[in-house]
Amino acid sequence: MIKDQTAIVGIAETPFSKSLEPSEKTLACQVILAALEDAGIDPSEVDGMSSYTMETTDAVEVAKTIGAGDITFFGQVGYGGGAGPGCVGHVAMAVATGQCKVGVAWRSRKRGSGVRPWASGMYAQPSAPAAFTRPYGLGRPSDEIAMLTRRYMHEYGATREHLCNVATSIRKMANNNPKAIMYERTMTREQYMQARWISEPLCLFDNCLETDGALACVIVSAERAQDCKQAPALIHSFGQGLPSQSHTMTNYWCDDPLRGPAYTCADQLYRNADIGPGDIQCAQLYDAFSPLIILSLEGYGFCERGEGAAFTEDGGLDLGGRLPTNTSGGGLSEAYVHGFNLINEGVRQIRGQSCNQVPDCEATLVTAGEGVPTSAVILRKAT
Amino acid sequence: MIKDQTAIVGIAETPFSKSLEPSEKTLACQVILAALEDAGIDPSEVDGMSSYTMETTDAVEVAKTIGAGDITFFGQVGYGGGAGPGCVGHVAMAVATGQCKVGVAWRSRKRGSGVRPWASGMYAQPSAPAAFTRPYGLGRPSDEIAMLTRRYMHEYGATREHLCNVATSIRKMANNNPKAIMYERTMTREQYMQARWISEPLCLFDNCLETDGALACVIVSAERAQDCKQAPALIHSFGQGLPSQSHTMTNYWCDDPLRGPAYTCADQLYRNADIGPGDIQCAQLYDAFSPLIILSLEGYGFCERGEGAAFTEDGGLDLGGRLPTNTSGGGLSEAYVHGFNLINEGVRQIRGQSCNQVPDCEATLVTAGEGVPTSAVILRKAT
Repeated sequence: MIKDQTAIVGIAETPFSKSLEPSEKTLACQVILAALEDAGIDPSEVDGMSSYTMETTDAVEVAKTIGAGDITFFGQVGYGGGAGPGCVGHVAMAVATGQCKVGVAWRSRKRGSGVRPWASGMYAQPSAPAAFTRPYGLGRPSDEIAMLTRRYMHEYGATREHLCNVATSIRKMANNNPKAIMYERTMTREQYMQARWISEPLCLFDNCLETDGALACVIVSAERAQDCKQAPALIHSFGQGLPSQSHTMTNYWCDDPLRGPAYTCADQLYRNADIGPGDIQCAQLYDAFSPLIILSLEGYGFCERGEGAAFTEDGGLDLGGRLPTNTSGGGLSEAYVHGFNLINEGVRQIRGQSCNQVPDCEATLVTAGEGVPTSAVILRKAT
Repeated sequence: MIKDQTAIVGIAETPFSKSLEPSEKTLACQVILAALEDAGIDPSEVDGMSSYTMETTDAVEVAKTIGAGDITFFGQVGYGGGAGPGCVGHVAMAVATGQCKVGVAWRSRKRGSGVRPWASGMYAQPSAPAAFTRPYGLGRPSDEIAMLTRRYMHEYGATREHLCNVATSIRKMANNNPKAIMYERTMTREQYMQARWISEPLCLFDNCLETDGALACVIVSAERAQDCKQAPALIHSFGQGLPSQSHTMTNYWCDDPLRGPAYTCADQLYRNADIGPGDIQCAQLYDAFSPLIILSLEGYGFCERGEGAAFTEDGGLDLGGRLPTNTSGGGLSEAYVHGFNLINEGVRQIRGQSCNQVPDCEATLVTAGEGVPTSAVILRKAT
């Protein structure tokens, strides 16, 4: 088991914006170097690298540009928003088993200024099962998750009020984070309710931002972490989840559409952990769409099935609430960089450096996308 | 360390041919199911999956089609021919750390009947550093390795006779393997010398085959391996190598062009191993091009630098020679499926099931491509 054997010791991110000038490669190299500086580790010590299969920057080019040493572990994780904690976990496995000593994980993406995937050729020749849904109008991820959301509402009596709870709670977090794109833009419930549909029942504010940005983190052994500049965020447990019968993004063909990848991932995550959902003080839950938070609350065991919507009531996700969630503003209101900002915010919570610091935060959960093959890590404070 | 904690317990492959009828996905599912059958493990137990980033088959679709269980580890390894043992090693890490229990690695590729990468758009917009070489005529991998080969010949006085030694030794292996594409086609030294140039100094027979085929293997813990149908091939050690200053396929820009990825990978591989090159009875060395074998002999420590060419003399790579190499015929004469056939042949040698069985084979080395970020595993017999 990798339990507590490794730690995230460095994090960094670019400014977040609708449009950044440098290339994705330049941004990637900048944040990796900054994360190493944050940890107090020389770039020449880097010998492990992991990123998303959707990442356009290449390990060879990045390694050469940052002045890395000889790399003895490299790999990639697929499924876009499902990959983030997976990259961290794979590096943790490699460090824990002696395959490398200083690993970096990163994501650099100019989605704000670049093309939307569904506007490119990628969506013109869909693979199964999307080939069966695109002709019927499920053209964008938002359309696909809208179907899942409708089913959830039907099964459990959830309403737009609950989605609004999610979006407004997370917006309030961003309003306290100067780096967040929505830092200066508050949102009332009325503004939420009056926003235009993107794909009913999902309105504009149920959808994540489109952002240019890059983030990185540095992973070393727990022993080496003691010599780093920052307090370590121990990687307590790691899981991935691709459930039997899974259909990426259109997970409503299977026997139980509302039992998504989060359940599989959570089983693995908690199996190798000493702590459970009740021991976690705040969560960074992947939020490309607001309903994913509700599904993740259930999948990762913070409440029972069908109770995720009610969990958001009465400020359940706010600071001081049942489970402060996406404390930097998440994908909905800080930046959407395929969820990597959730990882860095998890580390800040463990360090005690968040803009929305949860008092006495001993452990936090960071998840990747529900609706796709996913991943998650539990980060905790060293004792 | 993963040392001896996991084992390959099932292998399978399709027939090899210039043209197979089924799709790459169908072939992938067929070999994964056959490898599970070989191990005596039900498909529903599969919970780990790894393949090449260049693989077109998708974990979600393959998992569903074979009837896998909930998958808790998935990942991919980049750089084409550098990936094979990397996929095996990543699954081994995942099994050793409790992230999954039954992992499969696979490669399915219709390169024989499909397009050549350099005939497609992929090569029209080369990324750095290929952007600096393509305009000068280095259009295909063969051209790129030809430059490296010329440098090697210049530095160490190697000749075409040495490349011929490699190609003819490996052809003899294939002539004893009914599954090999070149099973019935012997090759004399004269035929080799009269073959047409592909990219001087590389002639036709220095280049690998172009094959349709798929292969898979199954990895479980060493403990679980005791209950499987076949004798286990323990994964003794695993390494990856992407050296500082690496230039994929055009590794002649760096300070020392002939110290390639194999050296970095070998350092990692032997660091975590109990055995060295002298304890290895046969090798499966990636052979997209015959000179890669000579470079790998040096990189993995079977001889000193500059002595790889002489190592091939007097039947050094033959059965009964210094190091029987590519005992199923390798990429040059069995099949070229991005090197995965070398993995399965390594397992057969440990089981004692090879067509060209090396007596008392206790340990074998399987490598991925020299010239690209690479990987390798040492497989050994359980004691």
